[in-house]
Amino acid sequence: MSGFRHVVMFRWQPEATAEQREAAISALGRLKEEVADLGRLSVGLDAGLAEGNADVVVVGDFPNSEAYLAYQSDPRHTKVVTEYLRPIIAERVALQYEL
Amino acid sequence: MSGFRHVVMFRWQPEATAEQREAAISALGRLKEEVADLGRLSVGLDAGLAEGNADVVVVGDFPNSEAYLAYQSDPRHTKVVTEYLRPIIAERVALQYEL
Repeated sequence: MSGFRHVVMFRWQPEATAEQREAAISALGRLKEEVADLGRLSVGLDAGLAEGNADVVVVGDFPNSEAYLAYQSDPRHTKVVTEYLRPIIAERVALQYEL
Repeated sequence: MSGFRHVVMFRWQPEATAEQREAAISALGRLKEEVADLGRLSVGLDAGLAEGNADVVVVGDFPNSEAYLAYQSDPRHTKVVTEYLRPIIAERVALQYEL
């Protein structure tokens, strides 16, 4: 498997409402369809198997780092970050690597 | 793509030596081969494209949650965690989800 992978995990703010969380997940679901031209996103909600886990992960698989960087600055992506995610995220950790 | 995914990200302790970090990455590389019967591990070192990223990610893809749980308690895995990772990890965040 070759390509370039972006992994980001979030923890919601405790005060984030269920509606805000659902809206954010739906926005990520739409983004997944919209940016299919750039790469393949997998969005996961924690299955609850362990204490202290993050709430959400996005794993983005891209053909190369250029496609990832295009995604990162793409207005379709930045809109989801600024309007849906940033307002209700308490913690974010990310990493990108060559597959 | 169906199955069950485990994602874990680490930040090294600042005082972790290069030798300790390399030994941990090699141990993860060996683990990847050893547990191929349970699932497929992808180990990534941060590409350095962004400030504040984690240092290492492991993405484990398993046929189902049972295979993941078997991996989680497998002595080949726990040995790597206790002998190589835990001594030099400053932060760890994980999540598991149905693909």
